Amino acid sequence: MAVRVDLNISLDGVAAPADPSPENPMGEDWGRLVADYMATRTFRERVFGDTTGAGTTGVDDRYAAAYFEGVGAEVIGAAMFGLHSFPDDPDWRGWWGDEPPFRVPVIVLTHRERAPIEFDNGTRFEFSSKSITDAVARAQSLAGDADVRVGGGLSTVRAALEADLVDRLHVAVRPVILGRGGRLWDDLRGLDTRYTVTSEVAESGVVHVTFAR
Amino acid sequence: MAVRVDLNISLDGVAAPADPSPENPMGEDWGRLVADYMATRTFRERVFGDTTGAGTTGVDDRYAAAYFEGVGAEVIGAAMFGLHSFPDDPDWRGWWGDEPPFRVPVIVLTHRERAPIEFDNGTRFEFSSKSITDAVARAQSLAGDADVRVGGGLSTVRAALEADLVDRLHVAVRPVILGRGGRLWDDLRGLDTRYTVTSEVAESGVVHVTFAR
Repeated sequence: MAVRVDLNISLDGVAAPADPSPENPMGEDWGRLVADYMATRTFRERVFGDTTGAGTTGVDDRYAAAYFEGVGAEVIGAAMFGLHSFPDDPDWRGWWGDEPPFRVPVIVLTHRERAPIEFDNGTRFEFSSKSITDAVARAQSLAGDADVRVGGGLSTVRAALEADLVDRLHVAVRPVILGRGGRLWDDLRGLDTRYTVTSEVAESGVVHVTFAR
Repeated sequence: MAVRVDLNISLDGVAAPADPSPENPMGEDWGRLVADYMATRTFRERVFGDTTGAGTTGVDDRYAAAYFEGVGAEVIGAAMFGLHSFPDDPDWRGWWGDEPPFRVPVIVLTHRERAPIEFDNGTRFEFSSKSITDAVARAQSLAGDADVRVGGGLSTVRAALEADLVDRLHVAVRPVILGRGGRLWDDLRGLDTRYTVTSEVAESGVVHVTFAR
């Protein structure tokens, strides 16, 4: 029943790399931010469909596996669905292709309501122009006893943190200094005082920091 | 012979708390930033003169002890000496009292040259209006085979990092979000690529991150 957030950030707190472009929609630094996460066996299997067992199996992989466990519904921003790229195409089904990796109901925050979109693998996009608080409540009603993930992007996650909706925040801090892009922690002074904070260093050098109620 | 920097920072990268005042010269958040460092047995003994053996003795204390080892000379900014507070008093000997904790030659960066000041415990303040590069070179000539520390404040440390003078940067990251104050990492994009970066979590929850050549 927890509301969860997982993010990859740099040591200087950048969660959304600068300068996203059509050729590089996540920004040019995305690869540096998520390299160790993408190297895990779990990520390779769940996202790339690699069933050879390749990939790392240490601490990073344990967090990657936990990421995919126990989520019954998700909340994402419009940009993460892809609306901002194709706002006027009613046939656009998001940038995730025919098998979006969510496999659960997904509430998409948008200013433009539209009909739900369903996929065979259990993913169902439902659009909401209400508040982040309403969207999380709706996701909770769909998730049943399972958790809700606020999946991103950064502004959606920050809205959920500011509204104090998040029960568990896990950040994988990669020790790189990006120096530009959207930062997670800005204006969240005192966030730590609402949680118990623990940290763990992975073999890769990534520091996993968890804020839990 | 290494040039070293040690800093306490928050998870959001703040190294210099906001709003320093005469009553609270290090800023109101200073205590939150350095609490685990000040709790170590080494700090209590070396800075407070507490010889009872009180204080923590784990990972934080190991870094605290290393901080005081092997430094033959130091470079600090004028604010850290106290010049900014008392610029026109020729008898002002800094805010460190009669036993400054340095116990080695200290180059103080200033725009106003003045005569050196010596203390019985080995501390000797020498003032320089030259560049950070020149100040570090002068400190190295005084340190002999020992290391040079760039001790602070934040702008002095950042100048040394920007000039690529630092061989080892150790940051003790306390998992608090301060949200205001001077940040260490700004404009240091790619700093990590010049170093090998390792991390270690202390019993206190502080994450010690070391950038070493």
